[in-house]
Amino acid sequence: MSLTIKLPVFSSHHHNLNNLKFNKTKLALYNAKFNKPKPTNPLVSSILYAKPTMYSLSHPANQIRSSLIDPDGGSLVDLVVPESERAKRVLEAEALPKVKLTKIDVEWVHVISEGWASPLRGFMREDEYLQSLHFNSLRTKNDGTIVNMSLPIVLAIDDEDKDRIGQSNNVALVGPTGDLIAILRSIEIYKHNKEERIARTWGTTAPGLPYVEEVITSAGNWLIGGDLEVLQPIKYNDGLDHYRLSPQQLRKEFDKRQADAVFAFQLRNPVHNGHALLMNDTRRRLLEMGYKNPILLLHPLGGFTKADDVPLDVRMDQHSKVLEDGVLDPETTIVAIFPSPMHYAGPTEVQWHAKARINAGANFYIVGRDPAGMGHPTEKRDLYDPDHGKKVLSMAPGLEKLNILPFRVAAYDTVQKKMAFFDPSRAKDFLFISGTKMRNYARTGENPPDGFMCPGGWKVLVNYYQSLQAEEASQQAAVLSA
Amino acid sequence: MSLTIKLPVFSSHHHNLNNLKFNKTKLALYNAKFNKPKPTNPLVSSILYAKPTMYSLSHPANQIRSSLIDPDGGSLVDLVVPESERAKRVLEAEALPKVKLTKIDVEWVHVISEGWASPLRGFMREDEYLQSLHFNSLRTKNDGTIVNMSLPIVLAIDDEDKDRIGQSNNVALVGPTGDLIAILRSIEIYKHNKEERIARTWGTTAPGLPYVEEVITSAGNWLIGGDLEVLQPIKYNDGLDHYRLSPQQLRKEFDKRQADAVFAFQLRNPVHNGHALLMNDTRRRLLEMGYKNPILLLHPLGGFTKADDVPLDVRMDQHSKVLEDGVLDPETTIVAIFPSPMHYAGPTEVQWHAKARINAGANFYIVGRDPAGMGHPTEKRDLYDPDHGKKVLSMAPGLEKLNILPFRVAAYDTVQKKMAFFDPSRAKDFLFISGTKMRNYARTGENPPDGFMCPGGWKVLVNYYQSLQAEEASQQAAVLSA
Repeated sequence: MSLTIKLPVFSSHHHNLNNLKFNKTKLALYNAKFNKPKPTNPLVSSILYAKPTMYSLSHPANQIRSSLIDPDGGSLVDLVVPESERAKRVLEAEALPKVKLTKIDVEWVHVISEGWASPLRGFMREDEYLQSLHFNSLRTKNDGTIVNMSLPIVLAIDDEDKDRIGQSNNVALVGPTGDLIAILRSIEIYKHNKEERIARTWGTTAPGLPYVEEVITSAGNWLIGGDLEVLQPIKYNDGLDHYRLSPQQLRKEFDKRQADAVFAFQLRNPVHNGHALLMNDTRRRLLEMGYKNPILLLHPLGGFTKADDVPLDVRMDQHSKVLEDGVLDPETTIVAIFPSPMHYAGPTEVQWHAKARINAGANFYIVGRDPAGMGHPTEKRDLYDPDHGKKVLSMAPGLEKLNILPFRVAAYDTVQKKMAFFDPSRAKDFLFISGTKMRNYARTGENPPDGFMCPGGWKVLVNYYQSLQAEEASQQAAVLSA
Repeated sequence: MSLTIKLPVFSSHHHNLNNLKFNKTKLALYNAKFNKPKPTNPLVSSILYAKPTMYSLSHPANQIRSSLIDPDGGSLVDLVVPESERAKRVLEAEALPKVKLTKIDVEWVHVISEGWASPLRGFMREDEYLQSLHFNSLRTKNDGTIVNMSLPIVLAIDDEDKDRIGQSNNVALVGPTGDLIAILRSIEIYKHNKEERIARTWGTTAPGLPYVEEVITSAGNWLIGGDLEVLQPIKYNDGLDHYRLSPQQLRKEFDKRQADAVFAFQLRNPVHNGHALLMNDTRRRLLEMGYKNPILLLHPLGGFTKADDVPLDVRMDQHSKVLEDGVLDPETTIVAIFPSPMHYAGPTEVQWHAKARINAGANFYIVGRDPAGMGHPTEKRDLYDPDHGKKVLSMAPGLEKLNILPFRVAAYDTVQKKMAFFDPSRAKDFLFISGTKMRNYARTGENPPDGFMCPGGWKVLVNYYQSLQAEEASQQAAVLSA
């Protein structure tokens, strides 16, 4: 009895160390019980900082703990083959049946291989797929604790692939240009019921869902799960790879900066001064709560986005201007790319966004109105209730250890001429500038009100939309002259 | 720390007493720890049987424990107003804004009021609805433990109802014929997004889902949640009320029979000898495992079913013939009606079927191929993967304490001339008789192979289909002569 019961107790208690810094009695008990030296600071131990934080997968017992929140499943998954074994594995992969990946499949390989989906170790087998689809969570195999996992992370193959694989136990995954990327081991092939997957993930089967149209509609009728071994780290060579910090690299950076709280801000849009207000206000609140060094993880999503979203390179350029212009403090901010593709699956997806950030070391997650939402593809309304995202996030199994910070609405205060928290007592003074409205300003070259966005950041957007219009015009000219 | 941690430990340990009867050391520890007299039989205590088992909701500390599995949330919900307070409550209800219920709404009132959905105490408020929809489970409010709850149990109202309710905190629920049925207290009204509810519950939005067409399509755009108080026990006066045993009545009956295991068989079809083989074989296996007195709960679903299912009264008649004919042993079988309406929502619904039986005292649940499934309404295939039901059931949060018994396929053995477990080594000897095929036999008056069903039971079905045809013929004649 003692072992199976003690494990969850230990685990939940340990997480409290990250989340609740006030209870020193608990900490003392914890140290006494588990026979560890009492750190001088309950959250940032000088002993731990004497050495860099390591996540040794082969020897979990030797793992050096930092003060950061534990990754899901206890240790970060890292599925990149060690350099010393690479040549051997490449040779093995060459002899295996091949499955060709799309660009978005490769993004998922990237996500899984770096441990964003820890403890997931590969594309989902059916038991994981069903748990994700029905319960938005996985029961971990070692001790039965529940981790969040709201999106099915799956790889589709077609009948031809299935025939070619035959009875093979392992397959090689090759990129869109034919390069060997990974081995998938101990595979399991099962039916891909697209209708059910879409209905349960998006809560609709209406045509026009961006991820469905891009990925699922044309995908094969089978899913293939297995354990992933990536032959070398995934790189995109698009000039942005230096922003693609893995969860392990982020944790090292947080430790290096001696963060005692990490608050993550997920976004797929340019940063305006309302966002900045919110992030700076969150830092202020964390300092008030007694944290000494809260670090902001400004974490734009870098995988697939829908056609009318601002492209990643433009957003990264815009974000760096926001830091240059001093709207956010570079000392206490880390900007990095979250490599996941976007589902636009609202309350279901926001759980994935939060869960992945736990694995990167964040113990606070900022959530706003209608996270990961969009307009209904065929009806004139939001696809999701704008409040469901934060509600579902606060109830989600496996996210109990994460502090959810719902945010107050910021809007343009026409009196103060700056972005400010909305004050319902003088509602008429406030101007709401949606993403669509912002893009329209930039597209038409019209300036938004003063103080909406820092000038450097705004210039990036205007330039992008001007280049887009020039491109469209030249394409139209080409069509007309053809 | 001690309290929050001890509670789940106690609870899971206690459930083990029901599920695993072998570990006497654990039992001794349990008794020592909680300072209870050691029962003479580890599962059926004579001390407990000295008094009838009571579920006192007002004094949970005084609750007398039987050896049966604990209901979800620790105690059975019973929402029927005590007789002494009835007159007062009726008076109060008469003065409240009224919400009119459909026949199926009343079935849900029945289900909730008797504790089948324990610990749910009324129609779901939004936080319960969202947890059910996204996670198929509820976090209990007292100690945070997770109970299964896969179907949203909700009450829809329309704009007019909403206007009439206004700012009232409570409403009265009235039946289809205008009789006062219940009070719903501390109400919450929230949006009824039908598309999302359907997609997430059924995994499809295809037209033709029986429950959707009957209940949801015509329902209002709001849901109303609150705490239910039922003015008197729900009765149907259809000659079958004596079969409608509440979870509390079932538990008393199991205790009276000194059951040390209760295995539930959910069905909405006539019982053929393949079912009987299975139920008898389950009893044999439980005896082999060391149980002394396993009791079968033969538990036909009594609420809404689709038009081509066999009606409840005919099924009850058929089931009683099966017991009369000695196919099942009346000594070790309890036949009762499960009052829930049917969703035909496959893997999502089977969890509800299982969870409700925990509340009725069952610690073993038999599950077959494609439980709660049906054909896809618009495509030529099963709506659900026939194996997903039992897989999802075995993974479902909150059902860990229930023993799931997946069953072997029985078919008609043409050599032995009886229903037998399918033997793949001589597959050609077996004849599969589906529900559709069985109904066709009965409809055409053709006899099924000898030994498929007991003669008394078969006669009931033939009579039903003959009366149906006579009725159809007279209706057709009426149409032609009109």
